[in-house]
Amino acid sequence: MQAMGFERILGGVCAPEGFLASGVSCGIKEEGGLDLALVYSEKPAAATGVFTTNSMKSPAVVLSRERLLGGAARAVVVNSGNANSMTGARGVDDAAAMAAAVEDALEIPAGQALVASTGRIGEYLPIKRVVSGIRAAVEDLNPGGNTDATKAIMTTDTYPKELAAKMEIGGKVVRVGAMAKGSGMIHPNLATMISVITTDLDIGVDTMRDWLGKAVEWSFNRISVDGDMSTCDTVFMMANGAVFPGGYKMTEEEAGLFFKTLCWLTGNLAVALVKDGEGATKLLRVVVNGAGDDTEAVLVARAIGNSSLVKCAFHGGLPAWGRIAAAVGSAGVPVSAEKLSVAIGESEVFSGGEMVEFDPGELGLVVNRDEVEITVDLGQGSGSAYFMTCDLSPEYVEFNAGDKSLWRDPVER
Amino acid sequence: MQAMGFERILGGVCAPEGFLASGVSCGIKEEGGLDLALVYSEKPAAATGVFTTNSMKSPAVVLSRERLLGGAARAVVVNSGNANSMTGARGVDDAAAMAAAVEDALEIPAGQALVASTGRIGEYLPIKRVVSGIRAAVEDLNPGGNTDATKAIMTTDTYPKELAAKMEIGGKVVRVGAMAKGSGMIHPNLATMISVITTDLDIGVDTMRDWLGKAVEWSFNRISVDGDMSTCDTVFMMANGAVFPGGYKMTEEEAGLFFKTLCWLTGNLAVALVKDGEGATKLLRVVVNGAGDDTEAVLVARAIGNSSLVKCAFHGGLPAWGRIAAAVGSAGVPVSAEKLSVAIGESEVFSGGEMVEFDPGELGLVVNRDEVEITVDLGQGSGSAYFMTCDLSPEYVEFNAGDKSLWRDPVER
Repeated sequence: MQAMGFERILGGVCAPEGFLASGVSCGIKEEGGLDLALVYSEKPAAATGVFTTNSMKSPAVVLSRERLLGGAARAVVVNSGNANSMTGARGVDDAAAMAAAVEDALEIPAGQALVASTGRIGEYLPIKRVVSGIRAAVEDLNPGGNTDATKAIMTTDTYPKELAAKMEIGGKVVRVGAMAKGSGMIHPNLATMISVITTDLDIGVDTMRDWLGKAVEWSFNRISVDGDMSTCDTVFMMANGAVFPGGYKMTEEEAGLFFKTLCWLTGNLAVALVKDGEGATKLLRVVVNGAGDDTEAVLVARAIGNSSLVKCAFHGGLPAWGRIAAAVGSAGVPVSAEKLSVAIGESEVFSGGEMVEFDPGELGLVVNRDEVEITVDLGQGSGSAYFMTCDLSPEYVEFNAGDKSLWRDPVER
Repeated sequence: MQAMGFERILGGVCAPEGFLASGVSCGIKEEGGLDLALVYSEKPAAATGVFTTNSMKSPAVVLSRERLLGGAARAVVVNSGNANSMTGARGVDDAAAMAAAVEDALEIPAGQALVASTGRIGEYLPIKRVVSGIRAAVEDLNPGGNTDATKAIMTTDTYPKELAAKMEIGGKVVRVGAMAKGSGMIHPNLATMISVITTDLDIGVDTMRDWLGKAVEWSFNRISVDGDMSTCDTVFMMANGAVFPGGYKMTEEEAGLFFKTLCWLTGNLAVALVKDGEGATKLLRVVVNGAGDDTEAVLVARAIGNSSLVKCAFHGGLPAWGRIAAAVGSAGVPVSAEKLSVAIGESEVFSGGEMVEFDPGELGLVVNRDEVEITVDLGQGSGSAYFMTCDLSPEYVEFNAGDKSLWRDPVER
């Protein structure tokens, strides 16, 4: 890892200097457990965010997006168990009340708190409990609170996902840390995922917007669990410059190193989200080469990664390359069978328009691995893209057909 | 039904005068059973077809599409159990050999036989057995062969689907009949479906192309089982004018009646395909109103109908309207929660941006019906569309994860 210029370290959002966090239980989740997370920067911080492209944006997304026009924030509050989405005027008020409660308890200026909510759609927040929870979370803020915070943003994730790294910039040790949650409704354009990224580097907000946009495009926007897109996906990033009290202007090389580290962080968290997708037993990496351009390559990679038939086949350990070919042809991109090549793992199964003899036994071993790579060459040009998805299992269906809690009258809550 | 101007009758592709059919077993399906169907018009017939939009078109699709530029055909041969798709140069030869065998055995001019194949992708046809089967099918042609033909085009369908109707045009009884098969990889744009429609009306091929295009757009193109698009979907239509030996020019009213009957036929077959979708236990009818225009309405209806989460929810009998709203927002069409209304069956659950109190017990009865209607109003304009899909069940996944026959070395066959 050091050969890459950065080093993985333990921890998450509290790894960078000047960040505190906490995770508390305020009673949103009926089954109990941590359900409210707070991340706080002791110093003013530049801040930006990337949000769902779903037209049905949740009130927290609308509020946070507007606040980030200012490019600064001191705190992020996230609740899990309830998405506060499709909740009308009351939902808008509740998101504002969450932000106000954070600002009030932390004694920070109005407009400096960001909000995210994840969980079930179409239920009003128990806002009194949430506000009490925010006060408790402020009391609990501490430099080792990152893992509690990470647990508190989980919904159907089976384990907390956090990651941190350090590197040397301007003679100082700079750190970047993050937490993220999945794990259904994951789709290109960030479906049902929340991530908070922190750093003690001094970054201008314009640079940070550019970097975060690219890092998200190449990670969270290239994964899918079920092809469904959420109403509340959010990635926040805060940079408080704590290691450079007098400010610091990075060299181009240093900027490149930090951006590379950021991409490593989001890329690894994206893989973790797919691996922990609902019912997932396998990671499928789809690589498309030879497309007319990168945009066409992304469309083809997504078509393969979102094919139910392909995902079922890999669940069953079937080398169903015909389903891959059919998915390629359905992407709405000019392709031709005559120029197509398909490989599963190292085994080429179709090449230049003709089937390739393969050893079924050997291919069987490949498709039963925990991670399978599908490589497609369209033979059209030099565009390429990758996309990561998981298999589709009966457990996914059972899980998503069985959430009987949806039965509750949402108006009563 | 008579009030509609036409009447359902027993039968299928042989209901119209001058059509014979047969279905034989030629040994493509390892499990045995009928796997080769032939439909033959005793007289020259106008013919047209609609095909998959998948770029990976099967050789049979390419061949038939080219032949139909001429607007005439005497026979359709369809094999099941093997799609002859992604089979390279040999697949092209095999499709041509099938057509030639039909023309040879029937002693009809070259270019007058149409071909379709459905089944597994990426396996060479056992062409000698297929050609023998074609000869046997020609021998077996008879005016009661429609049901054998319908059975012979089935792959994973659980029952044969055929339908016929009669009406009075020009003082004569005119008939139209059809057969169709599903039942996985069904998606907008005709995935893995084959249908053959026959009539003894005298129709010009230009009119027939227009009618069939519209009838397919409003039926087979508005259904989905799993969102996957096949490489070989085909709808053929033949009109032999047998009841009007001297030709006949329909009145506008008569033309309207026939077109309505054709739409009734394709619409009902489309519903049958969805109901018999792999693992399907429920039919979901999605109706979108109030869209900016009809095109936007179709996009929204498809987004709902293709949402794995929505389909899982209905499988489990959950009134998960939040998932419907999220799917609406992901359609890439301008919508706003403030103007959205959603109803499940007769129960409105969301209206004008706010949740509506509903009786969970009553709604529970609705969502557990065999057929559930989801109605969405976008409040944007007057565009509307409908879409039909089925629920997503663990059985679908098990079925598509378990086709161990895919293991066979395709080159050996």
